[in-house]
Amino acid sequence: MSIGVCYFPEHWPSERWEQDVEEMVEAGIEYVRMSEFAWAQLEPERDEFDFEWLDTVVDHLHEQDIDVVLCTPTATPPRWLVDDHPDILQEEDDGTKREFGSRRHYCFNSESYRLETARIVDELGEHFADHPGVVGWQIDNEFGCHGTLRCYCNDCSAAFSEWLEDRHGDIEALNDNWGTDFWSQQYDRFEQIQPPRHTAAWHHPSLLLDYARFTSDSVVEFNALQADLLNDHNDDWFITHNFMDHYPELDSYDVCESLDFASWDSYPTGFAQERGDPSTDELLVGDLDWVSFNHDLYRSAADAPFWVMEQQPGDINWPPYSPQPAEGAVRLWAHHAMSHGAESVVYFRWRRCREGQEQYHAGLLDADGSKARGYEGASEAASELVGLPDPGEVSSSVAVLHEYDNLWAVDEQANTPDFEYWEHLHGYYAVLRRRGVSVDVVEPTAALDEYDAVVAPTLYLINEERADALESYVEDGGELLLTLRSGVKDRHNKLLNASAPGPLADLVGTTVDEHEAQHPKQEQVVEYRGETYGYHTWNERLSPDSATVVGTYAAGSPDGLAAITEHEFGAGSAVYCGLWPDEDLTDRLVDDLLDRAGVEALSEPLPDNVRVTERGGKTWVTNGTGESVEIDASADAEFLLGEATVPAYDLSIADGPVTGLDVKVDESQS
Amino acid sequence: MSIGVCYFPEHWPSERWEQDVEEMVEAGIEYVRMSEFAWAQLEPERDEFDFEWLDTVVDHLHEQDIDVVLCTPTATPPRWLVDDHPDILQEEDDGTKREFGSRRHYCFNSESYRLETARIVDELGEHFADHPGVVGWQIDNEFGCHGTLRCYCNDCSAAFSEWLEDRHGDIEALNDNWGTDFWSQQYDRFEQIQPPRHTAAWHHPSLLLDYARFTSDSVVEFNALQADLLNDHNDDWFITHNFMDHYPELDSYDVCESLDFASWDSYPTGFAQERGDPSTDELLVGDLDWVSFNHDLYRSAADAPFWVMEQQPGDINWPPYSPQPAEGAVRLWAHHAMSHGAESVVYFRWRRCREGQEQYHAGLLDADGSKARGYEGASEAASELVGLPDPGEVSSSVAVLHEYDNLWAVDEQANTPDFEYWEHLHGYYAVLRRRGVSVDVVEPTAALDEYDAVVAPTLYLINEERADALESYVEDGGELLLTLRSGVKDRHNKLLNASAPGPLADLVGTTVDEHEAQHPKQEQVVEYRGETYGYHTWNERLSPDSATVVGTYAAGSPDGLAAITEHEFGAGSAVYCGLWPDEDLTDRLVDDLLDRAGVEALSEPLPDNVRVTERGGKTWVTNGTGESVEIDASADAEFLLGEATVPAYDLSIADGPVTGLDVKVDESQS
Amino acid sequence: MSIGVCYFPEHWPSERWEQDVEEMVEAGIEYVRMSEFAWAQLEPERDEFDFEWLDTVVDHLHEQDIDVVLCTPTATPPRWLVDDHPDILQEEDDGTKREFGSRRHYCFNSESYRLETARIVDELGEHFADHPGVVGWQIDNEFGCHGTLRCYCNDCSAAFSEWLEDRHGDIEALNDNWGTDFWSQQYDRFEQIQPPRHTAAWHHPSLLLDYARFTSDSVVEFNALQADLLNDHNDDWFITHNFMDHYPELDSYDVCESLDFASWDSYPTGFAQERGDPSTDELLVGDLDWVSFNHDLYRSAADAPFWVMEQQPGDINWPPYSPQPAEGAVRLWAHHAMSHGAESVVYFRWRRCREGQEQYHAGLLDADGSKARGYEGASEAASELVGLPDPGEVSSSVAVLHEYDNLWAVDEQANTPDFEYWEHLHGYYAVLRRRGVSVDVVEPTAALDEYDAVVAPTLYLINEERADALESYVEDGGELLLTLRSGVKDRHNKLLNASAPGPLADLVGTTVDEHEAQHPKQEQVVEYRGETYGYHTWNERLSPDSATVVGTYAAGSPDGLAAITEHEFGAGSAVYCGLWPDEDLTDRLVDDLLDRAGVEALSEPLPDNVRVTERGGKTWVTNGTGESVEIDASADAEFLLGEATVPAYDLSIADGPVTGLDVKVDESQS
Repeated sequence: MSIGVCYFPEHWPSERWEQDVEEMVEAGIEYVRMSEFAWAQLEPERDEFDFEWLDTVVDHLHEQDIDVVLCTPTATPPRWLVDDHPDILQEEDDGTKREFGSRRHYCFNSESYRLETARIVDELGEHFADHPGVVGWQIDNEFGCHGTLRCYCNDCSAAFSEWLEDRHGDIEALNDNWGTDFWSQQYDRFEQIQPPRHTAAWHHPSLLLDYARFTSDSVVEFNALQADLLNDHNDDWFITHNFMDHYPELDSYDVCESLDFASWDSYPTGFAQERGDPSTDELLVGDLDWVSFNHDLYRSAADAPFWVMEQQPGDINWPPYSPQPAEGAVRLWAHHAMSHGAESVVYFRWRRCREGQEQYHAGLLDADGSKARGYEGASEAASELVGLPDPGEVSSSVAVLHEYDNLWAVDEQANTPDFEYWEHLHGYYAVLRRRGVSVDVVEPTAALDEYDAVVAPTLYLINEERADALESYVEDGGELLLTLRSGVKDRHNKLLNASAPGPLADLVGTTVDEHEAQHPKQEQVVEYRGETYGYHTWNERLSPDSATVVGTYAAGSPDGLAAITEHEFGAGSAVYCGLWPDEDLTDRLVDDLLDRAGVEALSEPLPDNVRVTERGGKTWVTNGTGESVEIDASADAEFLLGEATVPAYDLSIADGPVTGLDVKVDESQS
Repeated sequence: MSIGVCYFPEHWPSERWEQDVEEMVEAGIEYVRMSEFAWAQLEPERDEFDFEWLDTVVDHLHEQDIDVVLCTPTATPPRWLVDDHPDILQEEDDGTKREFGSRRHYCFNSESYRLETARIVDELGEHFADHPGVVGWQIDNEFGCHGTLRCYCNDCSAAFSEWLEDRHGDIEALNDNWGTDFWSQQYDRFEQIQPPRHTAAWHHPSLLLDYARFTSDSVVEFNALQADLLNDHNDDWFITHNFMDHYPELDSYDVCESLDFASWDSYPTGFAQERGDPSTDELLVGDLDWVSFNHDLYRSAADAPFWVMEQQPGDINWPPYSPQPAEGAVRLWAHHAMSHGAESVVYFRWRRCREGQEQYHAGLLDADGSKARGYEGASEAASELVGLPDPGEVSSSVAVLHEYDNLWAVDEQANTPDFEYWEHLHGYYAVLRRRGVSVDVVEPTAALDEYDAVVAPTLYLINEERADALESYVEDGGELLLTLRSGVKDRHNKLLNASAPGPLADLVGTTVDEHEAQHPKQEQVVEYRGETYGYHTWNERLSPDSATVVGTYAAGSPDGLAAITEHEFGAGSAVYCGLWPDEDLTDRLVDDLLDRAGVEALSEPLPDNVRVTERGGKTWVTNGTGESVEIDASADAEFLLGEATVPAYDLSIADGPVTGLDVKVDESQS
Repeated sequence: MSIGVCYFPEHWPSERWEQDVEEMVEAGIEYVRMSEFAWAQLEPERDEFDFEWLDTVVDHLHEQDIDVVLCTPTATPPRWLVDDHPDILQEEDDGTKREFGSRRHYCFNSESYRLETARIVDELGEHFADHPGVVGWQIDNEFGCHGTLRCYCNDCSAAFSEWLEDRHGDIEALNDNWGTDFWSQQYDRFEQIQPPRHTAAWHHPSLLLDYARFTSDSVVEFNALQADLLNDHNDDWFITHNFMDHYPELDSYDVCESLDFASWDSYPTGFAQERGDPSTDELLVGDLDWVSFNHDLYRSAADAPFWVMEQQPGDINWPPYSPQPAEGAVRLWAHHAMSHGAESVVYFRWRRCREGQEQYHAGLLDADGSKARGYEGASEAASELVGLPDPGEVSSSVAVLHEYDNLWAVDEQANTPDFEYWEHLHGYYAVLRRRGVSVDVVEPTAALDEYDAVVAPTLYLINEERADALESYVEDGGELLLTLRSGVKDRHNKLLNASAPGPLADLVGTTVDEHEAQHPKQEQVVEYRGETYGYHTWNERLSPDSATVVGTYAAGSPDGLAAITEHEFGAGSAVYCGLWPDEDLTDRLVDDLLDRAGVEALSEPLPDNVRVTERGGKTWVTNGTGESVEIDASADAEFLLGEATVPAYDLSIADGPVTGLDVKVDESQS
């Protein structure tokens, strides 16, 4: 576990470089990431490469035993390149070009741009292949940032047609798979099919889903192109990409097939504002669960320890407001990432930039080169991590199933403004974390036998294979919680010719009679095992077959109808929840699931933003609140860091598992 | 009175068709509408027609005595046609094309598309001319849906120039009629005039009004083109079009000149959400008055019994939320339409579609072919209607005047965010319905002598002819209620060279001194005949001449000034109301009007969403609330359906007129 | 001091003109503005000029001793001109044309349009050069209205490149000045640089700032082109332009270099709605401070008495709502303008126009030619002004520093939705006005030695020269109040390589350690000289060097840190305020500043919308509220108009200075 920093020597006079490196050493930095966005410096004119400046800094760092992660600079094609190939610019759905003047102004399906990309990546790979200081590569930067994953240009249109032909084979098959009989949408040739450009009314849902898949695949291909080139030059260095918070448009599992591990960029206070209505604690430190979902997702996506490739160092420029993070937050975030399996946490950026679009983004140093508050947090974390024994890997006995195809299909046709796939998933993830349970976030097609319990929120697009896998899992003793809007459609986004959950009906022992996307004004109450709870957004009225009804609607039009069922199936059981439960009922459903599965967990849910997390037999207690908390540990509990009282925005590390510690948290803030 | 259903056999395997027809028979279906949007199935390639599938279904239905209404499929030109004529696509005001991929992607003024339309309509007309099972045609579908009535392409620009030349004669006349001296807007040639494309500031109001007329006329012409072709083949079948809820951009009176009767598409729970802030009852059953305004409007527009060509069958896909309609609503809507003069109510659609953009729209059957909740409602209504004697036509003694030109002129230049033409009209319509009064919705140029009372909201664009007609009406004993913003402009949208209401001033005996579009913060109180009421949005300070002041402002800057006047004129009288009254004052004004006119009405207004409606001497009591209501009928009242207690979302039909029954409703909900 | 009116004889039959002139005489009108927007009437076809109609009206007016101000009609190029040069149309940032059909549809950088402009202006100048009735010119109308100051067309792109070359010299300098190392934004040639067209993400802040300067300069140049031509024909007549309320995109100081004086267009009730959440008084009369800021700004911009070239006459068409101004407001506005140094107040317009886009804009006459309410207000003001002795000029001992460059830089990169430059400036301006203090609004480069105190809000873009000037000012005894976000960047919008306030740090004796753009949920309290106050939006944590801490944060994360400092420097002192104070603290800070500077001011702040203003030894008491107020004047106070009791929306003029009067106001409204 180590600390790194993102460095842009090209923004500063070369006279300053050595001082920067010295101060990095002093701060305990072990990795430095560079050359992101530096195409214009690396190749000021076509084929006039200038790597000298970068060599110099790499050498300085290497001399100080700081390893270097380089970036391919493809997120920012320089002006001369755009002049040579104006066709690389992306287009909006109304045909408006996304012009030069910011970043990410290139289309993933531009043949010109793929050639240019190969050229610069190859050049870089060759140049640094033998440098012992360069240990790995980040490909491009934040694919899809600023809404650039999807493009509507003619290159994309042609590539989409080809992609569709590859996938569907012939046009009759596509017409049949999609169901183009509706509104005379039949196609005669693949070339006729366009991206979902501006139309008077809604697009065909099957086209939208395939377009989402196609655009994700385009990036997967673009990433693989670069990864292959780099691997050709040196297959010892690692290859990664820095993903984004809950990024919806790119299938990170697919991208990871070309990566050694995943990394991602963590800006907790910004995420809290993006989600809306942040609490004061979230403004200052973020929502720890929202952050750690990314840790767990990207760790699971590559099935490998992950990096935080950009870690917030202070105030940032892109959310509406820019509060200063709480005193302690910059350090806390590093430890929190480590508890979820991070290998390294790399702060972004070394020094606040004097020029350009990110002047209002803090660095560990201020613009004038003096040490900013983040410097203290980062160096404190670095020195603490050096003292800790390697905790090994995260081990999870619970999986949450996640598939981007479901996200795409549901969010494109949510049928209510209130249904968001990520938020629905997050409801279940958060209550697991409240109970101190470690979670893997895996695809429905993953091997599930290693998990004692599986939560499967909204397995919307189903097929027999997925249904069979879940049946086998439960039959063999697995415990499954399946939620509403599952088994609704086939993999082409066509409704099944069967009641939901279609091929999952046998497993859960129930079908869905009718669904309702409720208005917030409607009364929404359900009784579950003798207690009354609220729910929201959606209800399904169930027709149980062999299942037992454990939850019944208790108000409004579904009053008295079945809402939640439980079904023993082989050696395990499957619960189907036909509504979106409020938090207390979500917790209750998950607690019952863990009970059945014999997963050890905290007996009471933790307070908001206080979390305990186990990694390799050690337990991090992270306090993301403004009040100190107490751990009710056994007398002989040993703390590797901190102690039983955890101050505001601080943490402790106990040498033992969550359950071994019998952790109990009292909030002094009551 | 009968029940029908919309059927899309082309979405289902032919093996299923016979079963569908059998189940329709079982449900009591008497009409089936088909071939909407089916151009690609009817003509898979240019000039390769395939009518066999449709013939087969028509035959199946005819064998079962179910009559068929066919649709011209012009709302969805197929992909190959768009490839042949990419110029048919509409354009937004900034030049963005409305592309293929949804529906309604054609310009009404495209010469290419008119030729294509004539080709397919002619082919269909010829093919079905002699089939006894085909009794009528729906032309296209919902003209203007998804904001497609207005297009800004070059074809429209050229057609607009021609239309203007036809209307104004020469360019000097246009310059004079519009008043283009303002801001140097003079034109030298008609060809210079464009649709109101994107400009820095507002467009000329006279251009906007003529553009609104032109675009409506374009559709009228497009519709007539089709109607004429169909009539050429068979003049026994009926021709109709399915209009939309309060659709503002198309003059339905004009369209109806080529139709045998009007039909419209009724989705009550969706309308309630579109209007904003729905009550719980409105979420579940809609606002009965908002719905019946359409019944009355479209019945009046063609002066003939109307059809509901699409009736909501359950949950629908296009409003923000999709609650399930109340138990009983699907049946109630059919009866409610019948009470307002419907000939037939056709549910949309037979079966929830597995594919395409409307998967979240219920049918009478579910996607898997099982019977959905709507099936019960529809078949119950069908069997009840069979048992009822033909009630004859609706007879109204009150007219509400409505003219699309006024709507266009006012809504384009409302001068406040709070003035909406439809809502102003609706205020008066709703209180008439609260009193059990039947209403015709007719143009100011209609013959008014058959009405005892006339409500004339905002006769904004006036001329001497319209004023004379109203004078004659009142002089001959008619009772008139005229409201604010009347007689403001000439028919070219130019302010009169006179105080409002211009040529109506003699009739109402008052002029408007000054108007005010008030901010909601301003205090708005008026005293009317000794009682104090609220008003909103707008006030006019009146200078009564020969009229009597019956309402006076009682707060704010107009305090003490005349607000409402009454004027005896010949054998009748005319009230002018210079403000937008709150509901209680609206009711009072209308109650006084009915009194003066001797129109029999309920002595107390009915509760929200409970309505009594007379048709041919029978009275429907429709209860659109979640509580049962009681009818205080005379002892010998006879009920053709239901009884004196009307359960939630249910109805009764009494054999006698509203007034004969002395209906009195108590709500048990207090 | 005199009253004028805007007249559009071209909208009315020539038979009416003499009557209009007679009624103007009767109303006391001394100036008439004409020919705005009249290009199509002056030149109906290319090179076919028709000045006869205008000559006639000018003659009529001159016969009655009414002076004429003519306008160049360049805001509305006629249709034929646009047909000849379609390239003159502006473009949005996505390339959409701003079409003919409203006004301001021309690009300032169009070479074609500059030639056309020169042609018509030259023709007009020549024609009227010797007419004794024409005393001055208004150039164009409201540059930038409707968002037209900035255009993104190819002409602008080319002109921007040239402008950049002029300013930066060579492309290496531009790359260095801007800092294009960031995100590979280097340019090789000036021609590569485009206006900030649509991009995926943010534009470079230095490009945005230079684009703001360039677009302002383009208008300055366009204006000078016209001014020079007119001056060539007659250098006795005056040249002005009518600016807009707080217009942000045009540097009015620069424009004024070609003008004899500035004028502006005052619509107080509209401005109140544009700012948001108006009080009832503001709906009826506007916010007097918001209005008078414009008076003071435009008086200062040309350093000359100003005109109100358009004064609201009644209800207006462009705000959301159109309440009638309070009884008295139309007269009050004229006097209020005079008290701030107006030479003339010209009402817009003479008569409500029957045609075109401004039908809902009142005139002094109604559309039918009868006298509207505004006529009374205007003529009353006119007759009162005739009776008053010339008060001479406004004399201010306090300056507020304002620079458009700072506005542009801050508002483009505010880093919070709550920071608006104008509002920040206004906070200080308003408390000065509450104390009865006269204010000049001058650039930081202005000579400051004539001022006893200077308020310098957000001197964001700094250089040594500006810092030196302020140092000299304070050193010589000046009193300075400098506020947050000062000295942050260099003149190219690049962060300084130093802590803020950079070169101002010596003067204020403190630096900024860290800033925070706070979320409204965060607690924001500061203690200043023993009292506790609120603040909002932004805080800076100060590191005082030689300064004394006079304000300390008292809550939240900056709790206990320095917030406000005071620093004696030479014979004066400099206060630095690192937060955005609530109104009471703003008042306290300013009161303390005035104390130190020895500026006489009212001992208590005036109530909302009641203001006292001194001009040439006379004091206007303007009451913009619905309640009467009392002036506690000395016994021998003499009133030139009104008396010690000032009724609602009325005024008095006392013959003596604010301080001489010892004015004290009690509000009877409690």
